[in-house]
Amino acid sequence: MNVAPSPRTQVRRGANRADYEQRTIRRILDAGLIAHVGVQTSDGPLVLPMAYGCDDEALYLHGAAANHLLGSGAGHDICASITLLDGLVMARTPFHNSMNYRSVVVRGLATKITDPAAKLQALRIITDHVVPNWDVGRPVSPTDNRKTLVLQMPLTEASAKIRTGDPIDEEHDVEGPWWAGVIPLETRFLAPRTAADCESSRPIPAHYVALEGTRTDER
Amino acid sequence: MNVAPSPRTQVRRGANRADYEQRTIRRILDAGLIAHVGVQTSDGPLVLPMAYGCDDEALYLHGAAANHLLGSGAGHDICASITLLDGLVMARTPFHNSMNYRSVVVRGLATKITDPAAKLQALRIITDHVVPNWDVGRPVSPTDNRKTLVLQMPLTEASAKIRTGDPIDEEHDVEGPWWAGVIPLETRFLAPRTAADCESSRPIPAHYVALEGTRTDER
Repeated sequence: MNVAPSPRTQVRRGANRADYEQRTIRRILDAGLIAHVGVQTSDGPLVLPMAYGCDDEALYLHGAAANHLLGSGAGHDICASITLLDGLVMARTPFHNSMNYRSVVVRGLATKITDPAAKLQALRIITDHVVPNWDVGRPVSPTDNRKTLVLQMPLTEASAKIRTGDPIDEEHDVEGPWWAGVIPLETRFLAPRTAADCESSRPIPAHYVALEGTRTDER
Repeated sequence: MNVAPSPRTQVRRGANRADYEQRTIRRILDAGLIAHVGVQTSDGPLVLPMAYGCDDEALYLHGAAANHLLGSGAGHDICASITLLDGLVMARTPFHNSMNYRSVVVRGLATKITDPAAKLQALRIITDHVVPNWDVGRPVSPTDNRKTLVLQMPLTEASAKIRTGDPIDEEHDVEGPWWAGVIPLETRFLAPRTAADCESSRPIPAHYVALEGTRTDER
C-alpha cells in the first residue's frame, strides 16, 4: 500500500512524486552518503550534514559524545533528509524550471543506543554504509566506542520523493521558440590517494581501487 | 576577523575547521546547488531540500504559495545547510574515518518578500544561481510571481566548515599494516538532453552545451 505511514509523513507538494514503499526508501538511503539532520535547539532549528547508516528498522547517526546536534536530538523528534541530485530541469520559462532528484525524509524520535554491543553494531552499519571497511582496519576499541554517541531513529515514518524526466511546461509555452530539456549530472569516485604518512608502496584495498570511475550512488 | 558572528553560529565540533569569512561562505554558497532547509513545525523539525540563491546580504528560497515548509518558516528562525562532498577519508581505523567537504550553515529569521519587484529580483537570483537562464526563456509573468512564495534570510549568522586532506590517525596506528588515504569524488554535468516535446533540431543554448564534463561546483 503506497500511502503515508502518518499524517506528518505525507508529502504535500508534488504528491504524485511521493513514494512510501519501503523498497524505494531503502534504495535511496543505500545510495546516499550524507544525511542532513535537523533538530530543534533552544536557539531555533539546526541542520547539519552527517554520515549515516541504516538497516530494515532504523537510521543510525553517530558523533562525538559531546556532539551538540546529537545531544539536542536524543530523546526528541528529529528529521533526516537524504537527497541525490540527478539533473537540472530547464523549462521554457524559469517559473517551471525544476530539478530531477531522489530524496527521502525520515521523521521520528531519536534515541541514544547505550548497550555497547548494539552501539558497536550500529557503528559497523554506519561505517560500511559509506564503503565496506569495518573489517579492513584496526578494530574500534571499547574506548573509541565509549567516546562515541550513537542515535537511532525508526524508519516507520519515512517518505521518498522522486522527480525524473522532462520539464512540464504550459501548453502555450511549448510552441514558443525556447529550448527545453534536462542537464543531467552525476557524482563519481576518483582514484584513491594514499595518505602522506602511509608508505606509498602499501597496496590500496582492491575494492577501493575498483571504485574509480563508478557512480557514488551505485556503490 | 575570523570569529563567529553570534554564539549560535559558533562551530562547536572541529572548531579548527570553522571559517566565518564572508568570502569563504559566499564561495561555498555559489558552488552549491541544493540547500537543506530546516524549520520547526507543530509536528517536530522538518528538513527539505530546496533550490536557493544568494547575494551579499541574503539567502533566498522559493516555493509554491502553499508550500508547507516555507509557510512554517516565514516569520520564524530557520536553518539552511549547504554541503559539498569532496571525498571519503579512510583512516587506519573506522573510528577515525571522515569525509572531506565544504559546508555552510545559515541560521536566522526568514521573512516573506511581498513587494512584487523585490520578489521578481529574488526569483532571478535563485534561477540564475543554478545556471544563468532567467533571460533565456519566456519571462516570468505577474501571475507566476503571485503564485510563488519567496523567503529571504540574512547571511549575518553564517558559518563555513571545511575539511580537506588526509585522515588523522593515532600515532600507534600509523605504524600498523593498514592502508590510509582519501577516495575523492566529484560531481559533473553530462550532455544536455532535449525534451521530448521540443523539436530536436532546436539549438541547445551554447552555455548549457559548454557545461558538459565540467564540475557542478565550478559552474
